Amino acid sequence: MSEIKDITSRDTDFAKWYTDVVTKAKLVDYSSVKGSMIILPYGYAIWEEMQKVLDKMFKETGHENVQMPMFIPESLLKVEKDHVAGFAPEVAWVTEGGKDKLDERLCVRPTSEVLFCDYYKKIIKSYRDLPKLYNQWCTIVRWEKTTRPFLRSREILWQEGHTMHATKEEAMNETLKMFKVYETFQREYLAIPVITGKKTEKEKFAGAIATYSIEAMMYDGVALQNGTSHYFGDNFAKAFGITYLNKDNKQVTPFQTSWGVSTRMIGALIMVHSDDRGLVIPPKIAPFKAIIIPINDSEIVNNAVLEIEDLLKSGGVTYKIDNSNKTPGFKFAEAEVKGYPVRIEVGPRDLEKGNVTIVRRDTLEKIECAKDNILVKLEEILEKMQQEMYDKALKRRDSMIYVANNYDEFREIANNKPGFIKTNWCGNLECENKIKDDFSMKSRCIIDDEEVTGPCVCCGKEAKYRLYFGKQY
Amino acid sequence: MSEIKDITSRDTDFAKWYTDVVTKAKLVDYSSVKGSMIILPYGYAIWEEMQKVLDKMFKETGHENVQMPMFIPESLLKVEKDHVAGFAPEVAWVTEGGKDKLDERLCVRPTSEVLFCDYYKKIIKSYRDLPKLYNQWCTIVRWEKTTRPFLRSREILWQEGHTMHATKEEAMNETLKMFKVYETFQREYLAIPVITGKKTEKEKFAGAIATYSIEAMMYDGVALQNGTSHYFGDNFAKAFGITYLNKDNKQVTPFQTSWGVSTRMIGALIMVHSDDRGLVIPPKIAPFKAIIIPINDSEIVNNAVLEIEDLLKSGGVTYKIDNSNKTPGFKFAEAEVKGYPVRIEVGPRDLEKGNVTIVRRDTLEKIECAKDNILVKLEEILEKMQQEMYDKALKRRDSMIYVANNYDEFREIANNKPGFIKTNWCGNLECENKIKDDFSMKSRCIIDDEEVTGPCVCCGKEAKYRLYFGKQY
Repeated sequence: MSEIKDITSRDTDFAKWYTDVVTKAKLVDYSSVKGSMIILPYGYAIWEEMQKVLDKMFKETGHENVQMPMFIPESLLKVEKDHVAGFAPEVAWVTEGGKDKLDERLCVRPTSEVLFCDYYKKIIKSYRDLPKLYNQWCTIVRWEKTTRPFLRSREILWQEGHTMHATKEEAMNETLKMFKVYETFQREYLAIPVITGKKTEKEKFAGAIATYSIEAMMYDGVALQNGTSHYFGDNFAKAFGITYLNKDNKQVTPFQTSWGVSTRMIGALIMVHSDDRGLVIPPKIAPFKAIIIPINDSEIVNNAVLEIEDLLKSGGVTYKIDNSNKTPGFKFAEAEVKGYPVRIEVGPRDLEKGNVTIVRRDTLEKIECAKDNILVKLEEILEKMQQEMYDKALKRRDSMIYVANNYDEFREIANNKPGFIKTNWCGNLECENKIKDDFSMKSRCIIDDEEVTGPCVCCGKEAKYRLYFGKQY
Repeated sequence: MSEIKDITSRDTDFAKWYTDVVTKAKLVDYSSVKGSMIILPYGYAIWEEMQKVLDKMFKETGHENVQMPMFIPESLLKVEKDHVAGFAPEVAWVTEGGKDKLDERLCVRPTSEVLFCDYYKKIIKSYRDLPKLYNQWCTIVRWEKTTRPFLRSREILWQEGHTMHATKEEAMNETLKMFKVYETFQREYLAIPVITGKKTEKEKFAGAIATYSIEAMMYDGVALQNGTSHYFGDNFAKAFGITYLNKDNKQVTPFQTSWGVSTRMIGALIMVHSDDRGLVIPPKIAPFKAIIIPINDSEIVNNAVLEIEDLLKSGGVTYKIDNSNKTPGFKFAEAEVKGYPVRIEVGPRDLEKGNVTIVRRDTLEKIECAKDNILVKLEEILEKMQQEMYDKALKRRDSMIYVANNYDEFREIANNKPGFIKTNWCGNLECENKIKDDFSMKSRCIIDDEEVTGPCVCCGKEAKYRLYFGKQY
């Protein structure tokens, strides 16, 4: 079967395995535009499923969708100093429009804080205008030198929420609320047990006061930052001169947040769950829950397939069907590459007993099922599969989190064991930088539910924080 | 009431009226990025409704969504000569990425034919690979000098379908099928009675063999091209060197189409249906079908509002509610500006009889309705309203189509009567150009269901076509 799929083993070469899976499953393809990828129908369908669920969650939490310009005049990008310093090195500049040279360069948005601020300045005048809870779905551009499908690309499909609030507390609540929405989504739909927490000063977003991050651990122990929610305080608002008249008739400055997730989540989905046979997609986010595979072209099989299709349609179960004249073995292998949560094998021998065979993609477990009972059985299987995929990922993640009490232990783990390292930190940039230089590991996030006792793992002075460190994509 | 709404009368100054409506109804706002607009939540919600319906229609006709790069290298744009000639003058050029000057300019896609061709060249090898039926939802950029919300903008939200087929016939069928999908959508959902037909050589899309256009007549008699479907034959395929092995084992060239509609349709929606009180939106495309307006803050009213909300929710009727402490008159006026298809006035006097008052936005007709029967009544009203809005628009359109048998008649109509002119044409570019120069009227499309007899309206030679002429946005 391996000739058909031709996927490198993930334990042999994880990077090659990843590229094989995204291309063989036809999620993306390379374009002749350097650094930009093409998202193919199956990859885009996964993104549409993610959008559907998230958009509903955003609307249920009171947010509205808008569409801002995609261009940012250079002068506007420069209004907030930290922000421009962080983003200017990695933007694409439009300098000519039609046949004319532009008076001012425009960058293609790398993120839209300044566009929202510019607009909020115009429309926020009174406490009655707050909060403003806007989101947009769009493409952003970051001029990356090296790119990898879904993980690092010049063009990124994402959503970005940008909100303004009357008080610090309200803005901080919003930051944490959307952070929680992301965590819930990734846990319940993507079956990814994420680690969540505040970023250090060094790792926070350019211009933010605090960045809260969703950190997912991939199969190879490397972290993928899979969503962030930022609290800006009044940094941008002050830089942009946004003020409003509060209830006491005073001009005051509002407080701001932004939060975003992107098609990067598809990369996480793959690197957490998939295997050497190809994609494995959690049922709740799979664009097609099942693939029906007729074992031969006999009348009894074809009739049963029609009946099953009717049942799936009536139950709202999305499915594909493989009616090609390939061999069953070939069809199975292809279905495995694509990662449909289950395949339904419809063959004459099973049908004699009124049965079909359902095969779970994650475990490859074969389950006999009475044809007429297929809807009930599928619901049961898909629900169980969703839970077990999460449990499995959680177990693996936890087995790859290590504790380092001193620098020797840190070195020993960092050099030998892929995964995250939990450790104490004094809070000084020098120590964080030293660990980065020595082990190519960045701090992932601050752990806020464990007591901090003992010395900093690096300098030995008193620790102020407990942190996760890890390599990252 | 006019102080509240402050909308210019459409019969006094149609252009000003349009701008007033789109801004007062909060569909769009101007940004400080020249030429780009901000689509506000209510405007974006209308676009989401359009997307939802169209995306379903596209998928039901076998199309799949993908996402291509947003940048086109200059050399790629230049592959098809007519295409580059048509688009190069109006594109935005990225010339710098990060801190580096690019070796080759990239334009932000003005349309994506060349990107799809470049990819199709890579993946189409055999007749088994055909047809390819891809669509994408994205933003395109055209460097317009003068812009108007939804009608002409530097950034346009749209969809573009790009398909490849084994035969001419199949490609032409696709062109006409999607043309029909657009016409159906605009008739059934937007309640716009469009005029459809083939464009003349002069007016067709740059690089196409034939362009089929959806032409809508606005309230002021001016045309809005509201969707196009193109047949390319093998023009692009040859320029890009796309070939495939057919069933007879020969290398042959496939045939291509593309088709697109954009947020321009929101402009059409407004300019066909809206009035001096603001927006009027056909129920089937309205993001919120109703607005509930409590007449006062009494317990009986508040309880009735809760009951009505429960009923609407149970019936899946989307709604807004105006719980502000403004006067009822003010709320009515605001609801009219926003164009919710109906408002539900919940007042104590009606409630004594167990009733509420439903007011249709298009006719302002007041309808008494038993509170408990509201779902049934609403369904009846909204369906009737959808039909009557279409009928009214059709009647107005037909009353503004004139026939010109000679140039004097043409001049008389063109100078005095806004609308479309039906006339005979010899097929020569000179005559088409002369009419454009004399009356600023372009040919809209060729009429294919009327016999052509008599001379060309311009030169007097034998006519080959019957055409619509009209001014355009």
